[in-house]
Amino acid sequence: MNFNEKLKNAMKMNQSLLCIGLDPDLELMREGMSVSKFNKAIIDATADLVCAYKLNLAFYEVLDKGMESLKRTVRAIPKHIPIIGDCKRGDIGNTAKAYAKAMFSLHGFDAVTVSPYMGFDSIEPFIDYWEKGVFVLCRTSNPGAEDFQSLPFILDGKEVPLFEIVALKAEQWNKKGKGHNIGLVVGATHPEELKLIRHHHPKMLLLIPGIGAQGGDLTSAVRNGVDAWGRGAIFSSSRQIIYASKRRDFAQAARQVALSLRDEIKHLATTRKK
Amino acid sequence: MNFNEKLKNAMKMNQSLLCIGLDPDLELMREGMSVSKFNKAIIDATADLVCAYKLNLAFYEVLDKGMESLKRTVRAIPKHIPIIGDCKRGDIGNTAKAYAKAMFSLHGFDAVTVSPYMGFDSIEPFIDYWEKGVFVLCRTSNPGAEDFQSLPFILDGKEVPLFEIVALKAEQWNKKGKGHNIGLVVGATHPEELKLIRHHHPKMLLLIPGIGAQGGDLTSAVRNGVDAWGRGAIFSSSRQIIYASKRRDFAQAARQVALSLRDEIKHLATTRKK
Repeated sequence: MNFNEKLKNAMKMNQSLLCIGLDPDLELMREGMSVSKFNKAIIDATADLVCAYKLNLAFYEVLDKGMESLKRTVRAIPKHIPIIGDCKRGDIGNTAKAYAKAMFSLHGFDAVTVSPYMGFDSIEPFIDYWEKGVFVLCRTSNPGAEDFQSLPFILDGKEVPLFEIVALKAEQWNKKGKGHNIGLVVGATHPEELKLIRHHHPKMLLLIPGIGAQGGDLTSAVRNGVDAWGRGAIFSSSRQIIYASKRRDFAQAARQVALSLRDEIKHLATTRKK
Repeated sequence: MNFNEKLKNAMKMNQSLLCIGLDPDLELMREGMSVSKFNKAIIDATADLVCAYKLNLAFYEVLDKGMESLKRTVRAIPKHIPIIGDCKRGDIGNTAKAYAKAMFSLHGFDAVTVSPYMGFDSIEPFIDYWEKGVFVLCRTSNPGAEDFQSLPFILDGKEVPLFEIVALKAEQWNKKGKGHNIGLVVGATHPEELKLIRHHHPKMLLLIPGIGAQGGDLTSAVRNGVDAWGRGAIFSSSRQIIYASKRRDFAQAARQVALSLRDEIKHLATTRKK
């Protein structure tokens, strides 16, 4: 089953557009717990509430036996829930090929995030895994996003920001590709720009981080981010959920936050004006 | 000793602006050899000819015990030769912090490459290691570089290509930082743009990949890339050197190619018109 189908099935089965970021942080985690045990507890408590899990590679690379923890975490996730490897890679052709193989074949991710700065041939090796998903960074949720992503470019006599040029190119590549497997990363912290991107790209799948701890407003993120059918977007949250408690009940606390977030997103997505 | 000093010393001691990319590829390597043994043989045969070694993370991440091979390779490099971790990372603040820690503290690199797309706060955690080097992707050597890097954006009323805006910002950040530890990655495959960047940024350290296998012309790369003193640039080559032979003499063959490349770069750098 390809990523798009797997995602749709998980969204339907769990009635959810929520993705949980499994980003272990030893300082925020319950003391003395191993990363893979912590993640497994969170997964076991939330697997019926999410459409995907997302693992940011940085938080595993920084650990001594991080790749072992990553492997165990991937193994702990039920087969029907897609896993996004948030790696933001981008390198020249033959190197990108090695990264794509690492992410898809070695780690077994169903989708990844990639950086667009180096252009098409840095993304192509990922897209070539047509049964996998590829989310291109478009408008990110951090303050520094302004530095380059919002720079105006003149296209057909109009000023268009870089992030929109990236979105346009990504949509072109998506139409050409066999798998139609490209989506965009658009942060929840910029609701107006999210609205613009959804308006110009009504059918593209969006990965929307930045709700919760990063301060993105959930209502506008959901109302602006979903497609005409109230779907087509994955809302990702990490710290707000997985570090809801440091006590013994941390997994149950995570479940409570995830449950109310899942329900709120669902409510907002289905009741918005079209 | 900080990266800048370590690099200068290695350049002087080995009379070299040459960097060798240790990018293991099981298909191109001598059959049956382990990655760390292969790398060690190359290092032992060339450590008196280089100003730095560069390890592209992709080629280790794709291997089963890749992080172990990386660790052994780093250990095999003499302490006075700086090591560049070519990882092209770029992520939001707290994630970038984890990446920086992984690259500098865990792997022990003296410098890294980073991607600028997400802006300052994605690069700052790397710069904060002020004794380490940080090369920001500017104009890369691959065909897809045209897709975004060469597009003209409006800056102060003028049309400026994105890569030049990145270079301008990087120079500003460099002046503000404690370590003056920012350099730029500019591919050898675009000699005119390399010339432009060197002209506008006469003092910035450049990391110049793409000579050799990627087809960049060495003469124009060196003449356009070095600073007014015939220094200030690192010329990186990988496949042309490390895969010079598949036979038992592969390390000696690598030495021969590295030696002539080192000498040619030196000759070009010292005899160019100012």
